[in-house]
Amino acid sequence: MELQEILDIFLTNDNFTILTHKSPDGDTLGSGFALCSFLRDMGKHANVLNSDQLPSRYAFLFEGYRPQEFEEKYVVAVDIADPNLIGSNLLQYQQQGAVDLCIDHHISNKNFADKTYVDGDASAAAMIIYEIIKLSGRPISDHIAKCLYTGVATDTGCFKYENTTPKTHIIAAELMAYNIDFANINREMFDVKSRGRMQVEQTVISRMKYYFEGRCSMIVLTKQLMAQCGVDQSEFDGLASIPLCVEGVDIGITVKERHTDYYKISVRTTDKLNAAEFCQQFGGGGHIRAAGCEIQGTLEQVEKQLLDGAAKLFEV
Amino acid sequence: MELQEILDIFLTNDNFTILTHKSPDGDTLGSGFALCSFLRDMGKHANVLNSDQLPSRYAFLFEGYRPQEFEEKYVVAVDIADPNLIGSNLLQYQQQGAVDLCIDHHISNKNFADKTYVDGDASAAAMIIYEIIKLSGRPISDHIAKCLYTGVATDTGCFKYENTTPKTHIIAAELMAYNIDFANINREMFDVKSRGRMQVEQTVISRMKYYFEGRCSMIVLTKQLMAQCGVDQSEFDGLASIPLCVEGVDIGITVKERHTDYYKISVRTTDKLNAAEFCQQFGGGGHIRAAGCEIQGTLEQVEKQLLDGAAKLFEV
Repeated sequence: MELQEILDIFLTNDNFTILTHKSPDGDTLGSGFALCSFLRDMGKHANVLNSDQLPSRYAFLFEGYRPQEFEEKYVVAVDIADPNLIGSNLLQYQQQGAVDLCIDHHISNKNFADKTYVDGDASAAAMIIYEIIKLSGRPISDHIAKCLYTGVATDTGCFKYENTTPKTHIIAAELMAYNIDFANINREMFDVKSRGRMQVEQTVISRMKYYFEGRCSMIVLTKQLMAQCGVDQSEFDGLASIPLCVEGVDIGITVKERHTDYYKISVRTTDKLNAAEFCQQFGGGGHIRAAGCEIQGTLEQVEKQLLDGAAKLFEV
Repeated sequence: MELQEILDIFLTNDNFTILTHKSPDGDTLGSGFALCSFLRDMGKHANVLNSDQLPSRYAFLFEGYRPQEFEEKYVVAVDIADPNLIGSNLLQYQQQGAVDLCIDHHISNKNFADKTYVDGDASAAAMIIYEIIKLSGRPISDHIAKCLYTGVATDTGCFKYENTTPKTHIIAAELMAYNIDFANINREMFDVKSRGRMQVEQTVISRMKYYFEGRCSMIVLTKQLMAQCGVDQSEFDGLASIPLCVEGVDIGITVKERHTDYYKISVRTTDKLNAAEFCQQFGGGGHIRAAGCEIQGTLEQVEKQLLDGAAKLFEV
């Protein structure tokens, strides 16, 4: 598919439903609401749907947004690699043939839509939406620019991660020509944390353990500890990067109790070790620097297995 | 001064000493070593000097660097706004007439050099160095690109802060065309912390206090607390941004004991409050979102004064 073909779809159809993925992030919401604004600005009807409640930290992306009433005629999924990610409250869209077009940047995309456009080189789905809108030659509103910048910035860790490309920076530069308070967006997206999250991070850092002369660090989240913190369960998401933030650590392991004697393990490594290889020892897998696995047993057994597995990495 | 004039200076002179500022950061070192490489690549003699020991986290900027022996003929200061920032181990360069050329991006530059080039719109001094090198038409080595990227990234909080401009992103895009492991650089610069620093942050977060329905937060660093942590004093630098990282907080205050009954106050605010105005109440000042002051008295008295001052901000 060419971008022009997608643009033609938007120009010649109407009554769009835009699907964004469950547990929404800045890229799916930024892409979805940018596309919705673009379509509405052209006089088309369009709504954005999500299976979950939209987190308030993204409220600036949908400020003033009101759902429109119309008979749905065209369904577009943005940033959704797998129909399961549409979520349990939008089951009807998970059926074969329910999605007309999917615009995505995950090469793992399951090709579940009638038409699929995947650009694996795009750092964010928002970059593809930007190119479509640019191709149209139509004006880009400040709101659209804000949505797209947020998508690009959040999916690249503010241009920090490996998936950032020269094009990512060029697009950021172009979006900054609009009236977007990017510094405030970045502060909200990257710096601000809830009090509960601050407390959780403080707790795990104070209990972090170090092994192999500080090259391996581990945090353990038992159900008991999580209950003691007295904060929302979601505050315990995305902690896996913390153990690797300590100077000298090459493998950071996060152990999270799922059920009694059943633990989910998240592993992050520097370029010196292979996280996927480590997790394969326990039937898991993933990427070179980020992988996971699940292990059954008592906490002591699980920790011992993980440390035995880590020992193999450090053997020469 | 035009950039061409600076380039001509580099082309027609030799035996350069490049001064970087004390307590060196990524921008002064990135700019300094990039300029040094540029000059040496042209067959010129050049050294980089710093008053302090260079922090090991910046080692990749001067890997393989060896001082050259030559009779110094031209002195260039980079990213140095004030002769005092040259540092106590390089006192001879603080004298009138000692510095031939200063290249800087601080509009507060004291004009202490014979010639001064200040571009207040440049997010980093490294952006100016990049433009000079580009103007020369000479090849940019991977090492030069790495140094310049580091300068630009570190001075903008990885393109997060207000001082980031479209040009900053364009230059980042251009530098990424070289073989620079920017993701690793960013990890080292922004994510990795020493164990001591992790402990310090954990300590201050656990002791953070909230006022005015959570809109004001305060951390207090007494000499006793800092001694208890048992870590290097430098680990207590740059903590002032932490109190403002809590959701809902509009003014974050950091109180640091200097001597008995003498406290240094750092204040950070969101766009809802004025930090400089707050600090002016206590004879201090600064920028709208980052300011400071000093207050004498017992800790209780100082805290009370600060909270009384904050109360005024929250009054309508």
